Amino acid sequence: MATLVERLTSIVGAAHVRTAAGELEVYARDATPLFHHRPDVVVFPGSTAEVAEVLRLATELRIPVVPRGAGSNLCAATVPLAGGIVLVLTRLDEILEVSGPELLARVQPGVSTQALATAAAAQGLLYVPDPGSKVVSTVGGNVATCAGGLRGLKYGVTRNYVLGLEVVLPTGEVVRTGGRLWKDVAGYDLTRLLTGSEGTLGVITEVTVALLPAPAATRTGVAYFADLAAAGRAVDAVIGAGITPATCEFLDRTCVAAVEDYAHLGLDTEAGALLLFGDDGDPELVDRSLGRIADVCTEHGATGVTLAADVAASEDLLAARRCSLPALSRLGSLTILEDATVPRPRLAEMADRITAIAAKHELTIGTFGHAGDGNLHPTCVLDASDAAAVERSHAAFGEIFGAAIDLGGTITGEHGVGAAKLPYLSRRLGNDQMALLSRIKTAFDPAGILNPGKLGSTGDQTTEAGTA
Amino acid sequence: MATLVERLTSIVGAAHVRTAAGELEVYARDATPLFHHRPDVVVFPGSTAEVAEVLRLATELRIPVVPRGAGSNLCAATVPLAGGIVLVLTRLDEILEVSGPELLARVQPGVSTQALATAAAAQGLLYVPDPGSKVVSTVGGNVATCAGGLRGLKYGVTRNYVLGLEVVLPTGEVVRTGGRLWKDVAGYDLTRLLTGSEGTLGVITEVTVALLPAPAATRTGVAYFADLAAAGRAVDAVIGAGITPATCEFLDRTCVAAVEDYAHLGLDTEAGALLLFGDDGDPELVDRSLGRIADVCTEHGATGVTLAADVAASEDLLAARRCSLPALSRLGSLTILEDATVPRPRLAEMADRITAIAAKHELTIGTFGHAGDGNLHPTCVLDASDAAAVERSHAAFGEIFGAAIDLGGTITGEHGVGAAKLPYLSRRLGNDQMALLSRIKTAFDPAGILNPGKLGSTGDQTTEAGTA
Repeated sequence: MATLVERLTSIVGAAHVRTAAGELEVYARDATPLFHHRPDVVVFPGSTAEVAEVLRLATELRIPVVPRGAGSNLCAATVPLAGGIVLVLTRLDEILEVSGPELLARVQPGVSTQALATAAAAQGLLYVPDPGSKVVSTVGGNVATCAGGLRGLKYGVTRNYVLGLEVVLPTGEVVRTGGRLWKDVAGYDLTRLLTGSEGTLGVITEVTVALLPAPAATRTGVAYFADLAAAGRAVDAVIGAGITPATCEFLDRTCVAAVEDYAHLGLDTEAGALLLFGDDGDPELVDRSLGRIADVCTEHGATGVTLAADVAASEDLLAARRCSLPALSRLGSLTILEDATVPRPRLAEMADRITAIAAKHELTIGTFGHAGDGNLHPTCVLDASDAAAVERSHAAFGEIFGAAIDLGGTITGEHGVGAAKLPYLSRRLGNDQMALLSRIKTAFDPAGILNPGKLGSTGDQTTEAGTA
Repeated sequence: MATLVERLTSIVGAAHVRTAAGELEVYARDATPLFHHRPDVVVFPGSTAEVAEVLRLATELRIPVVPRGAGSNLCAATVPLAGGIVLVLTRLDEILEVSGPELLARVQPGVSTQALATAAAAQGLLYVPDPGSKVVSTVGGNVATCAGGLRGLKYGVTRNYVLGLEVVLPTGEVVRTGGRLWKDVAGYDLTRLLTGSEGTLGVITEVTVALLPAPAATRTGVAYFADLAAAGRAVDAVIGAGITPATCEFLDRTCVAAVEDYAHLGLDTEAGALLLFGDDGDPELVDRSLGRIADVCTEHGATGVTLAADVAASEDLLAARRCSLPALSRLGSLTILEDATVPRPRLAEMADRITAIAAKHELTIGTFGHAGDGNLHPTCVLDASDAAAVERSHAAFGEIFGAAIDLGGTITGEHGVGAAKLPYLSRRLGNDQMALLSRIKTAFDPAGILNPGKLGSTGDQTTEAGTA
């Protein structure tokens, strides 16, 4: 190990290599509960060339490397289950360019999503992807997980905004995929293949993203329903009326109560479900759109509808949605957040299944999420010291993933597979596709050094590597 | 060969296997001039299971297979340069589902783009991709080439609308990628990797695409400028003003003259460039948007601006753009259409370079294309029997691709690489990325039977395979 550390030090400098136990401990986890494994060394490269040297060394020595941004992912994608090197990209944090005329930005991977959004806004532009973690999450991490957020139905997710990447292959070659163009079909679409590849195929060292002109107005409203089924019917009716809201979020009864208790926003805690809707664009059109959504909700049994009077009131409503996770977290010492996704018309059915599964396993599961794109975040809160409950939660999530697949959905809409959902992946993809993923992984990473035991591996390997 | 034909016949039935010389000749070409090679046999499978059996047989016997839809591609992607089997997917022509509530359609690959668009429109929905060939091109072919069209800047291209695929691997396994969801990150993004893979990684047997609510109104206008540089400055100013037109097309002087001579639309043939712009959405907003675009064009030196008074007039204007290729084709017996693409602010510079290259090589090259996304279609018209001119045209296009790359662009925005542009691909991607493409190809197709000598191969192999 001494040799490895010495060689890493000669690449990035002593100030950027960490081996003290306390520091290793910090990088033994990410935002995912229950997953923990210490790396042997943590390295902070300062350039693409240094990343390439580290990877060449790791391939030569067959040492695992786990690339990491802020570590805010929720699927244990950045827990170094096999030890080795954690490669932290936060020193590469420069916004290289924001171009209004070309509607794009070019950034290093360690730039925070919020910093990019702010830099874009300063030029009257919008960076669309807005995951819940945007204040801390990095653009590199967002690309690696194909992060989603609140604007999926109308605007799409990270993959729709990545135009080009600079990537270091595990064997040290630096390749540039895509570029500054909306249309470019020269070669296989490596830009999109790498987006969502969770640090298993290459290390992203630069990202070019598309921006949109910032909408002139944004407005939000809230509707309450007796239950999620009624809210789901209203959402179907809104979309059936030809309206594609920019935002369409829901909270179930458990979440509404938790949020109100946490943030005192004056929510109707008697309601069975809260629907938060919003649109953006031309001010008159937004007003008309919000009015129509409100009407459709009322026609479909909303027990109350309120449109935010101004931007501040809109922000308050969005805060209700954004604080769902911290609010739920207060209900127990352990919070497990998932993101099963189903075709939108099956949303209420899926929510009912989750309720039944929670009851069967005697668990508290609150569900919030993105009603517009069928992306649910069932969130289990429990006592971390209650081993039996933790065990039941694993069983419950297995059943939840199975239910999502049954309904034509998927085990993860936007959080990623990582180590946490790898054991369930073959159920979704089948063995032939799992084998294909593994062959693709090998095409990029013949020595298998990059984030082993994650995407491109089989679920079994992860279990071997340990999950606690 | 008898054995191969017998075995293919036992799979798809005698009525669906062709070996007569005249029939092989039909499938020796696609819409690309100058590329020609006869297959040994042409097969029309009637189901996914038959496709899988044909591919397993081909892998067993190491026989090349070229999947093909309408053959309307312009990059020789479906010319069977190594002989073998042409696998024509036009019998798989069923629209399986159009779902208004889910905003999606599920189709077999042989459905024409226009048929899908019509079926969507019947439910008040829009299928966005609209390549020039849409009346004949198939959805499978559009996905295989990641087809673009006139709506790229505002709406994106085919990749932005493919939600899921059923694909048969060259080794015969049937895999389903993605599905009915806007958000799905379970596994590598094979849906997007296969989109634009030009039939080299798998055979697409089913496609699920996203639809949008059809815009309530669409309107078009035209502006004339002294030259393309002035038109380009106007487009930059429009986008700088926060307007993203749904359509923003240009024709250079040569194209305007050819179109007017062909279609007698009353175009101003004195102008150096024609800009066709359009927007869609809410009727009032569209009117306002068109008015602002007209104003910006006038402020930036347009010599004339006309807004179409009604839908029929809009259609006439769009026809001017859509008939550019047939109009140019009348100027010579051989028409070579390319699609170099550059960052939008470099459009005029690229057009000037093309003009200079045409003059240097004493060629007639008219250029039209998509001003909004920097996608140019320089089109060389010449006498097919003039071997020296044909030779000069190859040299000219080599220089045009080089110029596009110099300006931060690419050798193909939407037509694909195929055999036609494979020799130029390494210039765009570099040798390390070329080697990576080849390893990915092998991960899907270990025997190398699927569309050999195209994407995933090196340029050199193509040259060996012959190009005439």
